Amino acid sequence: MHIDQLSDAELAQRLASAESDYAALAASGLSLDLTRGKPGAQQVALSDALDGILQGDYRAADGTDVRNYGGLFGLPEARELFGAWLDAPAAETLVGGNASLSLMYTVIDCALNEGLRGPGSAWGQAERVRFLCPAPGYDRHFSICQYLGIEMLTVPMLAEGPDMDAVEALLRDDPSIRGIWCVPRFSNPTGCVYSDATVERIAGLANLADGDFVVMWDNAYAVHTLYPDAPRLASVRAACARAGTADSLFQFGSTSKVTFAGAGVAFMASTTGNLDTLSRHLSYQTIGPDKVNQLRHVRFLRDAENIAAHMEAHATLIRPRFEAVLRALEEGLGGTGMGRWETPRGGYFIAFDTLPGLAREVVRLAAEVGVSLTPAGATFPYGEDPRDSNIRLAPTFPSQQDVEAAARAFVTCVQLATLRQKAAA
Amino acid sequence: MHIDQLSDAELAQRLASAESDYAALAASGLSLDLTRGKPGAQQVALSDALDGILQGDYRAADGTDVRNYGGLFGLPEARELFGAWLDAPAAETLVGGNASLSLMYTVIDCALNEGLRGPGSAWGQAERVRFLCPAPGYDRHFSICQYLGIEMLTVPMLAEGPDMDAVEALLRDDPSIRGIWCVPRFSNPTGCVYSDATVERIAGLANLADGDFVVMWDNAYAVHTLYPDAPRLASVRAACARAGTADSLFQFGSTSKVTFAGAGVAFMASTTGNLDTLSRHLSYQTIGPDKVNQLRHVRFLRDAENIAAHMEAHATLIRPRFEAVLRALEEGLGGTGMGRWETPRGGYFIAFDTLPGLAREVVRLAAEVGVSLTPAGATFPYGEDPRDSNIRLAPTFPSQQDVEAAARAFVTCVQLATLRQKAAA
Repeated sequence: MHIDQLSDAELAQRLASAESDYAALAASGLSLDLTRGKPGAQQVALSDALDGILQGDYRAADGTDVRNYGGLFGLPEARELFGAWLDAPAAETLVGGNASLSLMYTVIDCALNEGLRGPGSAWGQAERVRFLCPAPGYDRHFSICQYLGIEMLTVPMLAEGPDMDAVEALLRDDPSIRGIWCVPRFSNPTGCVYSDATVERIAGLANLADGDFVVMWDNAYAVHTLYPDAPRLASVRAACARAGTADSLFQFGSTSKVTFAGAGVAFMASTTGNLDTLSRHLSYQTIGPDKVNQLRHVRFLRDAENIAAHMEAHATLIRPRFEAVLRALEEGLGGTGMGRWETPRGGYFIAFDTLPGLAREVVRLAAEVGVSLTPAGATFPYGEDPRDSNIRLAPTFPSQQDVEAAARAFVTCVQLATLRQKAAA
Repeated sequence: MHIDQLSDAELAQRLASAESDYAALAASGLSLDLTRGKPGAQQVALSDALDGILQGDYRAADGTDVRNYGGLFGLPEARELFGAWLDAPAAETLVGGNASLSLMYTVIDCALNEGLRGPGSAWGQAERVRFLCPAPGYDRHFSICQYLGIEMLTVPMLAEGPDMDAVEALLRDDPSIRGIWCVPRFSNPTGCVYSDATVERIAGLANLADGDFVVMWDNAYAVHTLYPDAPRLASVRAACARAGTADSLFQFGSTSKVTFAGAGVAFMASTTGNLDTLSRHLSYQTIGPDKVNQLRHVRFLRDAENIAAHMEAHATLIRPRFEAVLRALEEGLGGTGMGRWETPRGGYFIAFDTLPGLAREVVRLAAEVGVSLTPAGATFPYGEDPRDSNIRLAPTFPSQQDVEAAARAFVTCVQLATLRQKAAA
């Protein structure tokens, strides 16, 4: 029954029951963790063939000896494979090291301190630099901005992506805005997939901006579907071509949650002019990426069809974990009005919204009974969730049994926090 | 015979002979390259066992699953192995990705923009930031300074390392100096090994400096000996401990010219306080280094004894190339006064000094007959060799036959340029 329809007696009874459930949890000595958006051991083992796959053949298709120096843009066959991943040609793709975050940091650092558009174009020359941050979003995007002194403007995330009315209105009003962060497919943490209309409007943003504007398109979960019917993402590159904004687009991806987390291959796509600018910036920091690991990945992943089959093997392992969390939420909270959540069709997270003002309390209650949750607010710029409502749940890493126990405990904590608030009101 | 002792007739005869040799070279259609300080194919093949060495065992000694995220400082056993390489304990060692250049850039970037000593310590807050650059030296060190707006002061390189009288005098006079670049063993390109006295004086520099000062100790050729009698390098860490300057020292190394160039492991050592500061800076750019490749390297390289044996296998391959160049120099130029060169006991280069004002001309003459040499001036800050004298020869990458042909051609170019100058005087 919805909590707004409970009589005082029913409320008191529910609260007593929740207190009792919580006390039982406290007594059961849990030690569970839903914080980490990282693959489980069975998932990474799907790629164990990587080490040794070269079988002594260290030559790339064009004859390059991958054991030696050279090639800031990455191996040709890697540029082709991962370019296709981002719907970009090899010539517009740069394949780097193990971290897409490094590539993103490089773009922002270069734009801020050196300039993407030649001498005098450095953002840092302006008094104020601002970025649009759809939230809840990925904390490490926000951290880059904060560390480098870029002010963040929070924009609501809706079911079809960022609130584009808000985005466009801000951009029209504020000439200091220089870019936007996007996780367009299975967004971290809400799991939403940007609609075709959203993609089209994002492609048009550079035309509204007063000066240089970048779309940081972190397609981290491009191939990470949980179900065959998962929504597809429209090609932002094609949309930018139509809008005449190709130079504003920087796409990113990696195999971190495809092969080995932290030992995969990261890549980016943009115009050749942008890549030339960035490669010059990179040339001061490195002779080039690890081409041996790139060749391993090309030989292992091979083509889009094989990648899809590989990701289905991942989905088989983690789908039951997602479903366990969703089942617990539905059974314990469905129809009660105690919170809202999405049912993602891919990605790594389930986003849960408590009633306003309860996220920190739920996280605290969970921690006290041995269940670690991502800190409330972590998914917002400056760590500040204005409604204190969003909690990111990451079900992939723990065992199936632990995920189920953690989800049940989480539901109890939500019930307790909500009923206590209601009773005190 | 020394060119100063030649009669006019002898000089004319020698010049005619050199012109004739050069014309023969031009007719022979050479295509040779002595520019690249990179290992040859046989050298990198010494490490072919790396791919596949894990044999499905992806667990580090402490149980860490190297296939998953985590650990900005690198694997414990990698920190131990590569710490010992730099004479530092594991706790003072950070093992990163494939490029020591990235680690160096990170230190300078962090010191300049964020500060190594807490809020307010960023070098960039001062009007002027200067660095001491012993030259000839490594062009990529100088490029980092130039790119980041750090002014460079050239200091002469002597047989025992940088001219420490000059270094200390500059440091006493100029409060804007914030550091010094060093390649202490088999210096790039002179091949010299810093003497014990030089190491001791470098360790004391921070005590002379007006404020924060760093020693960028790029020990790139720490284990790259060509002969068993190669001079040892004193421990700069021990010297800094004695001088009370531990916080000024940043040591760097990599396996790029030990295993695979560009697909090896880079590492650095400094105080735990400095590493904590840097790891925070790094945390905005990466989740962590490629631990799978670190584990491969630990299993492959194992210990100091095995590394020494591995490097002896490298030396066996490249020693004849060095000796071919030195033989050609001695046969063609010995006793003539047409130039000076060092006979390195390790490293990757032979540095040759023409008579003043001839380096560019020699490089030009060589290029015209199909022999590529490192551009004259490249080994100096801003690409400017004040004496236009130094030329870096890199004999490791070409075949033995090509090295011999290139060295003979180089000698002819030096003879021709020198004799022309002499005849015109």
